[in-house]
Amino acid sequence: MTLRPILLALCLAASLPVAAAAPYRSAQQILDASPASDWRTPAPENTLYMELDAGRVVIELAPGFAPRHVANIRTLAREGFWDGTSIYRVQDNFVAQFGDAEADDPGKAKNLGTAKRKLPAEFERDMSGLAFDVLPDADGWAPQAGFADGFAAGRDVQSGKAWMAHCYGVVGAGRNLEADSSIGAELYVVIGQSPRQLDRNITQVGRVIQGIELLSALPRGPEPMGFYADAAQRTPIRAVHLASEVPAAERTRLQILRTDTQTFRDMVEARRNRRDDFYKRPAGHIDLCNVPLPVRLAKE
Amino acid sequence: MTLRPILLALCLAASLPVAAAAPYRSAQQILDASPASDWRTPAPENTLYMELDAGRVVIELAPGFAPRHVANIRTLAREGFWDGTSIYRVQDNFVAQFGDAEADDPGKAKNLGTAKRKLPAEFERDMSGLAFDVLPDADGWAPQAGFADGFAAGRDVQSGKAWMAHCYGVVGAGRNLEADSSIGAELYVVIGQSPRQLDRNITQVGRVIQGIELLSALPRGPEPMGFYADAAQRTPIRAVHLASEVPAAERTRLQILRTDTQTFRDMVEARRNRRDDFYKRPAGHIDLCNVPLPVRLAKE
Repeated sequence: MTLRPILLALCLAASLPVAAAAPYRSAQQILDASPASDWRTPAPENTLYMELDAGRVVIELAPGFAPRHVANIRTLAREGFWDGTSIYRVQDNFVAQFGDAEADDPGKAKNLGTAKRKLPAEFERDMSGLAFDVLPDADGWAPQAGFADGFAAGRDVQSGKAWMAHCYGVVGAGRNLEADSSIGAELYVVIGQSPRQLDRNITQVGRVIQGIELLSALPRGPEPMGFYADAAQRTPIRAVHLASEVPAAERTRLQILRTDTQTFRDMVEARRNRRDDFYKRPAGHIDLCNVPLPVRLAKE
Repeated sequence: MTLRPILLALCLAASLPVAAAAPYRSAQQILDASPASDWRTPAPENTLYMELDAGRVVIELAPGFAPRHVANIRTLAREGFWDGTSIYRVQDNFVAQFGDAEADDPGKAKNLGTAKRKLPAEFERDMSGLAFDVLPDADGWAPQAGFADGFAAGRDVQSGKAWMAHCYGVVGAGRNLEADSSIGAELYVVIGQSPRQLDRNITQVGRVIQGIELLSALPRGPEPMGFYADAAQRTPIRAVHLASEVPAAERTRLQILRTDTQTFRDMVEARRNRRDDFYKRPAGHIDLCNVPLPVRLAKE
């Protein structure tokens, strides 16, 4: 190559329009620069601690979506229903389920104490009064997808309904065939590809905000649907208590990013279009369940 | 309520149009009724066996998408490159990665034998000559989504390109910042929510068709990105060999459902609209990575 074509190429390159893009900041850089006011502390009465031998799993409850179930779960936790129960089902790429392994056997089922034995299904709620931070991209499972009350959610303006979305870490109330057969005693946690087909078909009650890996890395149950027929293979649960019932010094002080903030919107955009040195082709898209909802330990 | 309005209601109900829907068959019922010709046997030279203390993980390679990488992987397997290596990274809701934990240390890195040290990136391929079974629903990450050559894939008719999609169980070739820095020696397996943002950014080489739970249930690495700094925490790999190099009697005889069959299309529809007694509101939609690609043991 002689000098002439090289110079020509350089001049051509210099004349190309250059997008005046702001320097790219990664999601982590955006979070690091966020003001304290962008973060909220989950209410202790909406926070469950599941104590396993391996550590603590922290769940934020969703009374805005499932008030009756959450009220029952609070009763069950206060009365120690789950203490000494187990994780009795772990199905790969689907769910870990816990509670009373003998719940279906009237002769062996654990006493439910003062908890309600019957609740209405809470698959969805009226969207009125619920702030909804819509994501920029279309969703295949819902007319609108976004975040509401701190949870991934779907919304249908036409029917006026909103509902929680089955993303990784979501906690749902196991039920039988009848829509109103869940009471919040048997709970499952999503540990795989988001099973969004369950949206609006089951009552969701919250999501794991810390310690999901204590559930997702459990050995899968050998029976159909991931059950352990052998009780010795189940993972014992020491206790499931409300944070509000635990001494303040023993609480896990977590904060969750608010989704009505510029920080959240910037983080979503940084994930939609990754412009760091690794990505050669930013997707220009993000699915609801690929959006992380950041959780951090409160600064002392 | 008197008799009259009851009769009126009955007559009204009887006059409503009734969809002449075929009786619902579950995905399993559809599979059970499938002819043998709907199933294919992966070629032994495209099948990898990863032998762990806990059992065997079976991977089907994708030479149709990444011919150069697959050729190198065959060389590495034949020369026993992975024998005695480890799974050295398990990041929750993301990937399990295996190979030579010391690959980045020139003083300790394992000899690559006759394998190539440099390969072009194989992020996508020309769509010409590639049969593509398009799914009925829109996909946010690709103009078209479906299955090609036995793998979940995206396609862009405008650019004429097709590529594998990062669904649960997909195997990809780890790389550094440069697009052409992978050679197939360091491999990762998706064990969480599909990270589709990696599509067209990394060379995918196959997918796990059996034994994924031996990877997905491993303890997560405590270091950033799920690495284990402590070598003792890594999971030893006894061997990774091609099925074609293993005596016939020791092979796992698997069959995979063809995606160009009515059985597959019926199964997808049964998953898009679940009309069994459990589901109260069929989704009418399915995302690419929610479509199972059935694998079964060959009948004797």
